[in-house]
Amino acid sequence: MDRICPNGDLKIPADIDLIDNTVLELCSGYSDGKGVNHIEGFNLPSETEVLRILEDLTEIIFPGYAGKRMMSLKNIRYSVGEILSRVYLDLNDIIFRAFRFECEMKNCKDCNVPEISERAVSRLIKSLPRTREILKLDASAAFAGDPAAKSLDEIVLSYPGLRAIAIQRIAHELYLGEVPLIPRMISEHAHRTTGIDIHPGASLGSSIFIDHGTGVVIGETAEIGNGVKIFQGVTLGALSFPKDACGQIIKGLKRHPTIKDNVTIYSGATILGNIVVGEGSVIGGNVWLTESVEPGTLVTISPPDLKIKTRTRK
Amino acid sequence: MDRICPNGDLKIPADIDLIDNTVLELCSGYSDGKGVNHIEGFNLPSETEVLRILEDLTEIIFPGYAGKRMMSLKNIRYSVGEILSRVYLDLNDIIFRAFRFECEMKNCKDCNVPEISERAVSRLIKSLPRTREILKLDASAAFAGDPAAKSLDEIVLSYPGLRAIAIQRIAHELYLGEVPLIPRMISEHAHRTTGIDIHPGASLGSSIFIDHGTGVVIGETAEIGNGVKIFQGVTLGALSFPKDACGQIIKGLKRHPTIKDNVTIYSGATILGNIVVGEGSVIGGNVWLTESVEPGTLVTISPPDLKIKTRTRK
Amino acid sequence: MDRICPNGDLKIPADIDLIDNTVLELCSGYSDGKGVNHIEGFNLPSETEVLRILEDLTEIIFPGYAGKRMMSLKNIRYSVGEILSRVYLDLNDIIFRAFRFECEMKNCKDCNVPEISERAVSRLIKSLPRTREILKLDASAAFAGDPAAKSLDEIVLSYPGLRAIAIQRIAHELYLGEVPLIPRMISEHAHRTTGIDIHPGASLGSSIFIDHGTGVVIGETAEIGNGVKIFQGVTLGALSFPKDACGQIIKGLKRHPTIKDNVTIYSGATILGNIVVGEGSVIGGNVWLTESVEPGTLVTISPPDLKIKTRTRK
Repeated sequence: MDRICPNGDLKIPADIDLIDNTVLELCSGYSDGKGVNHIEGFNLPSETEVLRILEDLTEIIFPGYAGKRMMSLKNIRYSVGEILSRVYLDLNDIIFRAFRFECEMKNCKDCNVPEISERAVSRLIKSLPRTREILKLDASAAFAGDPAAKSLDEIVLSYPGLRAIAIQRIAHELYLGEVPLIPRMISEHAHRTTGIDIHPGASLGSSIFIDHGTGVVIGETAEIGNGVKIFQGVTLGALSFPKDACGQIIKGLKRHPTIKDNVTIYSGATILGNIVVGEGSVIGGNVWLTESVEPGTLVTISPPDLKIKTRTRK
Repeated sequence: MDRICPNGDLKIPADIDLIDNTVLELCSGYSDGKGVNHIEGFNLPSETEVLRILEDLTEIIFPGYAGKRMMSLKNIRYSVGEILSRVYLDLNDIIFRAFRFECEMKNCKDCNVPEISERAVSRLIKSLPRTREILKLDASAAFAGDPAAKSLDEIVLSYPGLRAIAIQRIAHELYLGEVPLIPRMISEHAHRTTGIDIHPGASLGSSIFIDHGTGVVIGETAEIGNGVKIFQGVTLGALSFPKDACGQIIKGLKRHPTIKDNVTIYSGATILGNIVVGEGSVIGGNVWLTESVEPGTLVTISPPDLKIKTRTRK
Repeated sequence: MDRICPNGDLKIPADIDLIDNTVLELCSGYSDGKGVNHIEGFNLPSETEVLRILEDLTEIIFPGYAGKRMMSLKNIRYSVGEILSRVYLDLNDIIFRAFRFECEMKNCKDCNVPEISERAVSRLIKSLPRTREILKLDASAAFAGDPAAKSLDEIVLSYPGLRAIAIQRIAHELYLGEVPLIPRMISEHAHRTTGIDIHPGASLGSSIFIDHGTGVVIGETAEIGNGVKIFQGVTLGALSFPKDACGQIIKGLKRHPTIKDNVTIYSGATILGNIVVGEGSVIGGNVWLTESVEPGTLVTISPPDLKIKTRTRK
């Protein structure tokens, strides 16, 4: 085969006019002040920074799993202390910037940004030991609930459900601390890497198991009890979005379901609105539920009748 | 705990025969000329290169969000000029290679590869200011449509729908420029990082909002108007694939839906075939639609009847 | 705009007590021996190592596509030999560690870890040429089955289905070699980057095409024949998890479907339990199937009746 292209070789054209004109046009678009524009703003937290911090937090919660360093009970105190000190500084930095940015946008004059940032950071740091204990229960729930699970280590190393839940628990603490931007950046990272979309505002009990998980959506005001099992493609969503007198969607209302302890929700089920699914209930695959059910309720559908035709094929 | 493994230590075996034989067997498979083989071909564009370019394009469209550099309206012209000049060269390089590769495969002799590459590059570069303006409208549509959205910045920084749409708009320009391979590599990157699979061929209006998005599939010949809202798990697909006389699927026919302005499509709905969903229509969750509907139509299903049994549980 | 924040500047607080107390609390949680804890264990295989090896294996199977080096039939033997030698060493290292870790956990004394590791490595290496041949057939099946596919190269470079299948074939060889942890880490990487969740235990024939793929779940004991086509959102799952006398889920039973040759399964279909879908059958979109069907069967549902209301809209 001939290595010479019969159709010409690359000569980069020097089309300076094209570039110049495009730059000018872009710049006039940047300065119209109509948003989607981060120039002249304070430096935002960046995705790279947020992910580095998230990695450190994961290392603290599941020490040794990232395989970055050998740890033993004798030296763990130093490793964790070193990581935590670094995380503490980094968190202060990005959370401060997120609050400062919000104050600038809202043009508020009287909030003490350093103080509210520090409070949010402390809240997250203090929550870590408890988060770790709860995640142990989550991992055990996955092991007990999945016949394919071979060991707890396999779950920590590879189960997307545990990963999504771990990240949401961290994002939720920041959400409770009212940190702008960062909680959603964190939870969207979980969504991207697991296909599981849990809003940082959702409140999760312990021993939660999300199996497979792709397509799961859990809304901002959802509340989930202990021992809940959720399969792929489940939506805990809003039924409608009330609007104010000006026709704007009202933000912040409780509009997602409350799922009580020990409920199981099978794949593809959709549960919508501010309703309650009572303790120990089982929601079958593909169910579409918009009303509360009593504790201990089994909700299923007759799947649509099958039309079965046997054909002759070569 | 004993740090010595009772079951032996690692001694890497030097199984030269295994490696030699496997290499020989692989190489004979490489040279059978039956495809899935990129040896002896011109150098293809690689994923790494494509993603680096995509990152630069995103920085131009949403300056400052990546957090890589401080920008101000005074210096933005230099930053953007520098990025755009680099992108221009890089695009010329990979697009040239993609076209040259296609010519080689088709063994065509009379196409002017440098010229068609340059035309495709210019087309994309020129489209950037307009793409940015449309993406502003997309971001505003997300803010107006999602009660959980806190700010436009949150949307730009973390909403997968906006990310998928931004990337598709870039891929679509390359598709219109008939660039081989690269448009699909770009859109598949969006699919991978958002779960939203929009073919580069699909044509999108402005003020589009895709919420959550995991599992959304939008086919090559779909057309979507302005102000359309799409939720997770929606398919705009083909109903059947007509075959030619030899039984081969015919490529390129219009086989996906046309969605007119201001249509809302709720989660899990499937819309198939070359049909039209009229302006302002609302398609309910889990609807399965294969026929055109008039403007202003509300299409819902009665969800399958629920069987509700309340049980006594300890 | 004023670049000074009216609400104070960042002063990192030196809250040593907070950090000290949190470290102490965390460390006491680490040492309770209740799992989710990798301290004092042998060094586990890490995700970074596993992914590097996976990248090398992909380069061997699809040489030239990663664009890392120019290859020609004359020098390919050296490139592949060099990569394969490196992979061989790396695989021996991480697989050895995975087995050693398992032996440690189970406290077993009489298994010969170096021997069983080497056996598993050889098994995988030997399988590569055949895996490559099968993947050629998979790529051809995608080209034949997708009207949007422009070339085989496009499929290799960008189709998530081919990627997920390629990775599963590798994970499956390790699963058959009974390697702990690593198969699932590998297949979860495929899940993360494609939305397609195929357990390493599933057994796949040749000429398999998974289109779009987001949300596909294929369970551990599923068996799939040749020429099978699967669309997005399809589940091949378990119907129920039998429990033993102590109420623990029994692991390892055949609980997922067997799909015979040339079956097509359309989007959103759910097939559950240890049932058989006979050769050449077609399972329609959103079908929910829990019983075996004969060869050549067409299974569809009447989609739920649509309620269509045309409204007047401005």
